Amino acid sequence: MSATLGELSQLSGARLEGSSDCAITSVNTLRQAKQGEISFLSNRHYANDLLDTKASAVILSEEDLKHCPTHALVSDTPYLVYAKIANFLHPEISRDGSVADSAILGSGCDVDKTATVCANVVIGNNVIIGAGVYVGPNSTLEDNVKIDTASKLIANVTICNDVIVGKNVILHPGVVLGADGFGLAKEDDEWIKIPQIGSVLIGDNVEIGANSTIDRGAIENTVLKNGVKIDNQVQIGHNVVIGENTAIAGCSGIAGSTTIGKRCMIGGASSISGHIEITDDVTITGMSGVSNSIKTPGIYSSGLPVTENRIWRKNIVRMKNLDETIRKILLKIQ
Amino acid sequence: MSATLGELSQLSGARLEGSSDCAITSVNTLRQAKQGEISFLSNRHYANDLLDTKASAVILSEEDLKHCPTHALVSDTPYLVYAKIANFLHPEISRDGSVADSAILGSGCDVDKTATVCANVVIGNNVIIGAGVYVGPNSTLEDNVKIDTASKLIANVTICNDVIVGKNVILHPGVVLGADGFGLAKEDDEWIKIPQIGSVLIGDNVEIGANSTIDRGAIENTVLKNGVKIDNQVQIGHNVVIGENTAIAGCSGIAGSTTIGKRCMIGGASSISGHIEITDDVTITGMSGVSNSIKTPGIYSSGLPVTENRIWRKNIVRMKNLDETIRKILLKIQ
Amino acid sequence: MSATLGELSQLSGARLEGSSDCAITSVNTLRQAKQGEISFLSNRHYANDLLDTKASAVILSEEDLKHCPTHALVSDTPYLVYAKIANFLHPEISRDGSVADSAILGSGCDVDKTATVCANVVIGNNVIIGAGVYVGPNSTLEDNVKIDTASKLIANVTICNDVIVGKNVILHPGVVLGADGFGLAKEDDEWIKIPQIGSVLIGDNVEIGANSTIDRGAIENTVLKNGVKIDNQVQIGHNVVIGENTAIAGCSGIAGSTTIGKRCMIGGASSISGHIEITDDVTITGMSGVSNSIKTPGIYSSGLPVTENRIWRKNIVRMKNLDETIRKILLKIQ
Repeated sequence: MSATLGELSQLSGARLEGSSDCAITSVNTLRQAKQGEISFLSNRHYANDLLDTKASAVILSEEDLKHCPTHALVSDTPYLVYAKIANFLHPEISRDGSVADSAILGSGCDVDKTATVCANVVIGNNVIIGAGVYVGPNSTLEDNVKIDTASKLIANVTICNDVIVGKNVILHPGVVLGADGFGLAKEDDEWIKIPQIGSVLIGDNVEIGANSTIDRGAIENTVLKNGVKIDNQVQIGHNVVIGENTAIAGCSGIAGSTTIGKRCMIGGASSISGHIEITDDVTITGMSGVSNSIKTPGIYSSGLPVTENRIWRKNIVRMKNLDETIRKILLKIQ
Repeated sequence: MSATLGELSQLSGARLEGSSDCAITSVNTLRQAKQGEISFLSNRHYANDLLDTKASAVILSEEDLKHCPTHALVSDTPYLVYAKIANFLHPEISRDGSVADSAILGSGCDVDKTATVCANVVIGNNVIIGAGVYVGPNSTLEDNVKIDTASKLIANVTICNDVIVGKNVILHPGVVLGADGFGLAKEDDEWIKIPQIGSVLIGDNVEIGANSTIDRGAIENTVLKNGVKIDNQVQIGHNVVIGENTAIAGCSGIAGSTTIGKRCMIGGASSISGHIEITDDVTITGMSGVSNSIKTPGIYSSGLPVTENRIWRKNIVRMKNLDETIRKILLKIQ
Repeated sequence: MSATLGELSQLSGARLEGSSDCAITSVNTLRQAKQGEISFLSNRHYANDLLDTKASAVILSEEDLKHCPTHALVSDTPYLVYAKIANFLHPEISRDGSVADSAILGSGCDVDKTATVCANVVIGNNVIIGAGVYVGPNSTLEDNVKIDTASKLIANVTICNDVIVGKNVILHPGVVLGADGFGLAKEDDEWIKIPQIGSVLIGDNVEIGANSTIDRGAIENTVLKNGVKIDNQVQIGHNVVIGENTAIAGCSGIAGSTTIGKRCMIGGASSISGHIEITDDVTITGMSGVSNSIKTPGIYSSGLPVTENRIWRKNIVRMKNLDETIRKILLKIQ
């Protein structure tokens, strides 16, 4: 796609500073951009790259405008403006709407004629696939799965029986929806499996990253509400409920029966215990552990950053005896 | 399935309080249960739900009986009673025992006539598949794999050459058994790969969750003994040995050559170092790190739970200097 | 394969102590080795096993030679010698070079006649597959992917469009290369997806473990340079650059736009924040979190090892109030 800077100003709502006729064909980073490309500055880390950029135009905030060596689109939210322009200049490839010869469908399926089912996909019985849906190669859909309009399963996605996926959902390769939760009861020394008879409900506009897993409910359903965004290798336990527009970064795990509110942001490699409640608008920074309910919106943390190994070796001995040492000190000084 | 409460009392061993004729068709939660459904109370978190439940019967302990508004099954182990009843009311779907036309088998395979091999499965040479085994769609079994009676590979499971899987095993989607362990030797600046010539032995009644990975041994085998239960996204390194009936929750990792005893419980997101030994009956709570052998049964922990971010920012500075600060304090007060 | 100890001494460069004619057919551990097998001692943990070994020969260091009950190959780097000998005695199976009937290829592909494409592989348009490449069963390669000479995709590997893979690369089952990075911009309460238009470049001699995921770049590429070794279930975010011969152990995650130098070693279950730089020759021990750039080579740590649960319960209360408590103590004693 291609557009003039004037058109990009109009579609994004950002203020134009410079030539409206300037032709833009692509986005790029400040450092790599060439003539005909637009870039953006939204992270202070890259502020120095602005001075020497070869981009034809840059999206930036009012305060950075004075350092901009070329045309500009000015906005309070440059990254959002970038998102809109990047989506316009780099639209998704449209699909043909066909079922590959090698795809295998069970009985009673209803596949919309505008849906694409790729090679070596295996689909069970009574599966419903909506308009414009894309089911990528080597994916497996078990019985009674429903995929609503315009959702995309990139490749090698597994969806177990009875799972319901909303509109405009993106499931990246290796995603597993609806595998059994980890439900076990002990009899003497042995574990007895609890049947997992709930399902998974995925709302509209949800995106789930590569190799993430969302377990089916034990009895009630596991639920990801509209606009939830999940990164790669995230594990969501059975009966978890995640509120609208909450985002969870990579390598995090949410244990069973926990409820997370709306608009939360969970940093990467975080772990959240089971059977707790996290209210709306909570931010958990990366590598944190949450073991109790959080009732007040705000930012919470527990990750421990590295020090030099020789110092850490001494510190962990102190940490192992922390209560005892502080108790002794307090006794002595009182 | 359907049963009377009297029948459910009999099969589960729980004491009947109320009508033996009460008809039960399904399990449900206390909150969602309707007429004809049985629920249970085993987690104090849900005690209030008992008072208003619409369930026809509830499985609970002696002490909760007085609050029960309907028929009851009374037991010291209500969750175990629930497990037995849920398994009875919600039995697994039985399979037909057939090999799909699109499944591809190598030479010298021995597939029992009661086994089911689904669409687009790829099986190498000399693979043995026992009675009642289910190999779900898009799974791959390399040469010389053996799967014993009644085991189920749900879908998209990969089993590398020579791996042996016991009876009644469940492998969830995305499981990889027998990929190479991380074995490298350094020559100057470069890494040389160590051939991984051991295999993986999976005992009977093992369950392995979605996208978990069990590496093959470097020389000897990696072994999961009977009754081991592994949740989703767990990584088991080469030459690990896990004892009978040990359970490992999601997102945990066990590094190579570590031995874990029987009946251990490893909480979610835990990490266990390589070349150590953990004795029988050890519980590791979630988000813990184990870097030395544990020789005494008991409960061990190291996860650090969140605090408000502004407090945490000050605490981590203290933690980085912990030994130095305490050393100074002790000097001063002695 | 089979060789005399003299031949193995020659090919590995280790000094022979004992009979040059001794015939060796296989490697094994000190504990399990039988007549005709060679073992090694490189980890002190297994020193006692040397005394009773039934191996015909042992690879070991000068200092252990005096305890060796049989023939020996002596070296300063016994594990490296072992690696060379194991690779010689246990060579990889050679492949036939053929495209399975059930593999599905798009238009414009260029598959070298010595490459092997296994059953149920799905390949898009304009894909280039080099000499001796092995594409295992149920793998998916999207459009414009290039795989260079002698690389192996074991099984069920997904490579998204435009990704470039170097020579002698090994991709284990469940690996996903080039899925979209986690790029989102906020508009009011909702997330807008940022198109991920960069790709992934994998250098030569890279190995990536089972179910690991390497995201494509947002604009520029994600890059793993020559000799990088990645274990299982590792997540590499978009625009990460990893230097030559760096090794990352299992369950680690690297957030977006971070640069890691050459010859680094990242321990298992480590988390590295986004937009930081780690210089060459840095070692991060297991279960550590890195949230700031590291400019000095060395060893860094932050993992917290377990204590008994009853002690930990008191310690974490102290840790939550650490700054406040120390502040009070310091005030009091000054």
